[in-house]
Amino acid sequence: MRGEAKPIRVEVTTIDPTTEERQEKNVTVGPPSSNLGAGVPAGGDFHVYDTTLRDGSQQEGMNLSVADKLSIAALLDEMGVGFIEGGWPGAIPKDTEFFQRAGKELHLERALLAAFGSTRKAGGRAADDPQVRALLDAETPVVTLVAKSDIRHVERALKTSGEENLAMITDTVGFLVAEGRRVFLDAEHFFDGYRFDAAYTLSALGAAAQAGAEVLVLCDTNGGMLPEWVAQIVGEVREALPETRLGIHAHNDTGCAVANTMAAIAAGARHAQGTINGYGERTGNADLTTIIANIELKRGERVIGLDRLEDLTRLSHAISEITVQTPLARQPYVGVSAFAHKAGLHASAIRVDPDLYQHIDPHVVGNDMRMLVSEMAGRASIELKGRELGFDLRGKGELLARVTQRVKDAEAAGATFDAADASFELLLREEIDGSRPAYFRTESWRIISEDGAGRDAVTEATVKVHAGRRRLVAVGEGNGPVNALDKALRAALIEVYPELEKIQLVDFKVRILDSSHGTDAVTRVLIESAEGPKTWRTVGVGPNVIDASWQALVDSLDYGLIHAGVEPK
Amino acid sequence: MRGEAKPIRVEVTTIDPTTEERQEKNVTVGPPSSNLGAGVPAGGDFHVYDTTLRDGSQQEGMNLSVADKLSIAALLDEMGVGFIEGGWPGAIPKDTEFFQRAGKELHLERALLAAFGSTRKAGGRAADDPQVRALLDAETPVVTLVAKSDIRHVERALKTSGEENLAMITDTVGFLVAEGRRVFLDAEHFFDGYRFDAAYTLSALGAAAQAGAEVLVLCDTNGGMLPEWVAQIVGEVREALPETRLGIHAHNDTGCAVANTMAAIAAGARHAQGTINGYGERTGNADLTTIIANIELKRGERVIGLDRLEDLTRLSHAISEITVQTPLARQPYVGVSAFAHKAGLHASAIRVDPDLYQHIDPHVVGNDMRMLVSEMAGRASIELKGRELGFDLRGKGELLARVTQRVKDAEAAGATFDAADASFELLLREEIDGSRPAYFRTESWRIISEDGAGRDAVTEATVKVHAGRRRLVAVGEGNGPVNALDKALRAALIEVYPELEKIQLVDFKVRILDSSHGTDAVTRVLIESAEGPKTWRTVGVGPNVIDASWQALVDSLDYGLIHAGVEPK
Repeated sequence: MRGEAKPIRVEVTTIDPTTEERQEKNVTVGPPSSNLGAGVPAGGDFHVYDTTLRDGSQQEGMNLSVADKLSIAALLDEMGVGFIEGGWPGAIPKDTEFFQRAGKELHLERALLAAFGSTRKAGGRAADDPQVRALLDAETPVVTLVAKSDIRHVERALKTSGEENLAMITDTVGFLVAEGRRVFLDAEHFFDGYRFDAAYTLSALGAAAQAGAEVLVLCDTNGGMLPEWVAQIVGEVREALPETRLGIHAHNDTGCAVANTMAAIAAGARHAQGTINGYGERTGNADLTTIIANIELKRGERVIGLDRLEDLTRLSHAISEITVQTPLARQPYVGVSAFAHKAGLHASAIRVDPDLYQHIDPHVVGNDMRMLVSEMAGRASIELKGRELGFDLRGKGELLARVTQRVKDAEAAGATFDAADASFELLLREEIDGSRPAYFRTESWRIISEDGAGRDAVTEATVKVHAGRRRLVAVGEGNGPVNALDKALRAALIEVYPELEKIQLVDFKVRILDSSHGTDAVTRVLIESAEGPKTWRTVGVGPNVIDASWQALVDSLDYGLIHAGVEPK
Repeated sequence: MRGEAKPIRVEVTTIDPTTEERQEKNVTVGPPSSNLGAGVPAGGDFHVYDTTLRDGSQQEGMNLSVADKLSIAALLDEMGVGFIEGGWPGAIPKDTEFFQRAGKELHLERALLAAFGSTRKAGGRAADDPQVRALLDAETPVVTLVAKSDIRHVERALKTSGEENLAMITDTVGFLVAEGRRVFLDAEHFFDGYRFDAAYTLSALGAAAQAGAEVLVLCDTNGGMLPEWVAQIVGEVREALPETRLGIHAHNDTGCAVANTMAAIAAGARHAQGTINGYGERTGNADLTTIIANIELKRGERVIGLDRLEDLTRLSHAISEITVQTPLARQPYVGVSAFAHKAGLHASAIRVDPDLYQHIDPHVVGNDMRMLVSEMAGRASIELKGRELGFDLRGKGELLARVTQRVKDAEAAGATFDAADASFELLLREEIDGSRPAYFRTESWRIISEDGAGRDAVTEATVKVHAGRRRLVAVGEGNGPVNALDKALRAALIEVYPELEKIQLVDFKVRILDSSHGTDAVTRVLIESAEGPKTWRTVGVGPNVIDASWQALVDSLDYGLIHAGVEPK
């Protein structure tokens, strides 16, 4: 279907970044060669290209094992991405191992694996370059080559000439294509380079296309672009190179990574690179979960399909379990807060018509609407919240009135249920006869803490509780009152409730509520607990911070035991 | 300067969201009235409008006290925003109190306070509407009125007619303008409404402008827009209403809040609303820190000025300490990872020329490149901080190196001097011979806390210290360890240092720093103290929360005594 190969003459405008002076230039770029190796995909099929395992793993604090990478790759395939960039074989030993094991252990249904590497060294031959050979040895259907396209980087970082850089591109792309690989070219620092010297960046793209590269990926490596600039430049490149698929690779340094990706797509790019949950160096890469949902739901184009889209929230969270990165509650589409409504004013209208207050139906991405119970809540939001927790409160006016009043009183006293769903559920259960089981009764607790005379201070807690018809006394040592009480309480109860072994205290926060009275004021303690991947939050409030911690702790264990299906003994 | 008031005839295109059918309509909208109350600001001065205290506080888990709000407002003023939306007086008691106290306690240098509220009830009169009267009672120079502009919301949520909604806008805006207020109109659900029925949304804007509204703020309330749509619609509104300032209020549901704001500005909006750190309901509001930096550094327009921009990182972090929200490491411009480079490949090139790998110089926003944490950069900011505190450190290279190293070590261990200037000053004094006086020496402290068997729990502290050549032993009772230690320490020292009578502990906050280890992790305690109107913050860090509190307490009293001019005894 492709026309006869002939060179293209392009007019380009260069803008000097300091003087903003424009200069018109003519440049000759080649059309894509007819020798495309494994071939361009049929039709206008959009490329969703994931680089979580390579660029995403550059995030500060992220350290993925080979096993982690294999697990993530399987989840990415389940999500329906088209391409999975696995790493840089040859350069990073862990990545070499990943590709070796991937060939045997991964059974991808849809996605193709890509190996990432750079063009050959200056002055050499691609066929002899060990790093290029390592790309072949990875035995992936796709190789993504990073190449310099900004003349300043060629001269100052690579320390070679513009001509040699073009030769490196032509030679490396041509070699890999001849070896039967589909080659995607990541043009590093493309946008900065284009604004400085458009002609040179286009000649780099042209060299790659002529040598058989299937995709020319325009990279905003430093992440400094705004969408309007991206749209304009992608449009100009599209005119200059109308026959080769363009891609976009954005970073979030201006907070616009997703928008820059969407702008490039609107301007004709048909390949988007990104990472799950926006992982990546500095401010991160473009968040592929948001991009996929935007393309599907805002542009109305099928890229993974609406069926798979329903797994987006689950898979995003599953991947964050493997990366051990706390999920961002405010993350678009998949965050736990993404469809959480707090303003009381909205609640009654939402009950009538949720579409009025949500840009999409959250179920489409596997998420859910949540009502946050707060001081602004009325009966309508309590009813909705109850429904969310599995309690049908319709028509139960008196119960609703009691619960609403208790929430208002508790919030006036300093509690905050919007951050403590579990304590709200327990409050609701207390008002529904017999639905909050009494697992244990507290007789007393005591804390002793002393400075360590040069060593770390130690805090000791003693608790006395009754459960299983026994009086249980235990002591716990910790680095503070909450930790010590938690240890002592578990030690006391574990024989009666061995299920507590699995429940963990994950985090706690202390706030002083009326700071005009200093520490004489009311304190609020929020505790986050977990059993495996499930987490819940409880709240305790009172003039004494340790007393408030105790309440939150008791709620936390009660909630955990209820949801583990444990009967009180 | 404004032309003669005459109605404007506008052609608008309506797009049916289901059929995508376009329909041309003519609509007549009024020009702004010449009766503008306190007046339009002169010239093309851009409005940076912060709504952290109102819309930001809708974030899940955020609960700000009045004291928190006052502290944040002072920091926002320091940041240089033009307008601070304080809350909804009349609707939320806490907000009513905020405006009462703001009038006495806040001394804003630049920002103007805005009270937020809605148009009057259907079928009433603005002058008689209690909610509208509460807006007047807040006594702010600016009132921001939210009004419905989407005809579906008028009919289905407000349950009134389109005509009545226009009358509500005209009446309420006109009443407040006549009372001397500058009125900004937040047109709720504007973009969704415009795509459904452009003519109606424009008539709502026209009614507001004609009644004297100074700014027409186009709100993407549900956050579902993409930048290209925003740009187009703002452009069309600009043509329809060329004489009134347009504003933008975006939410992040498509991951494009910042980009949508930038797109609106590029299309002619001259007023941007947002929240610090992107706080807000669901996925949050547009992050004002990113927007300010983008406008200053990408568009090259002065909105807070380059001098104040250098405080952006510090102020963003200080506000996150007050909101007790973990700062996002990947946050553009101000995140701790925003200029952190991990890729080994880049390291040597960065040393040669950091500009090649960074979209801006991080110092411009008060942040720093990490990995190559240049000694010079570190020392320069210590020198600047020292100067701010009254210490001339120029040329004192060895001292600066020691202080820089101690700050780095302390921050690595979990301290944060951003929010604890007083502790930083004490650290600096320790390195400057003899400038941190030794007021007392600690022998030991002990805490005992027991549940109150039905009454409130009581915490008791015993401290043993040496001062004025005496061994002082005292006991203090309180509602928690910090309070009890504070009382015991004062009781012990008051005879030797009667000046302690005037120093008060105002607030304290506890943070867990590595939540992956639960309460076994490092804790950070921030204490705020006051002597009359002067306040200061100190920090303590350690595995034991009570030990960390003790450090912060000791720092707090030492700082207070130094600045009261007390000699050690």
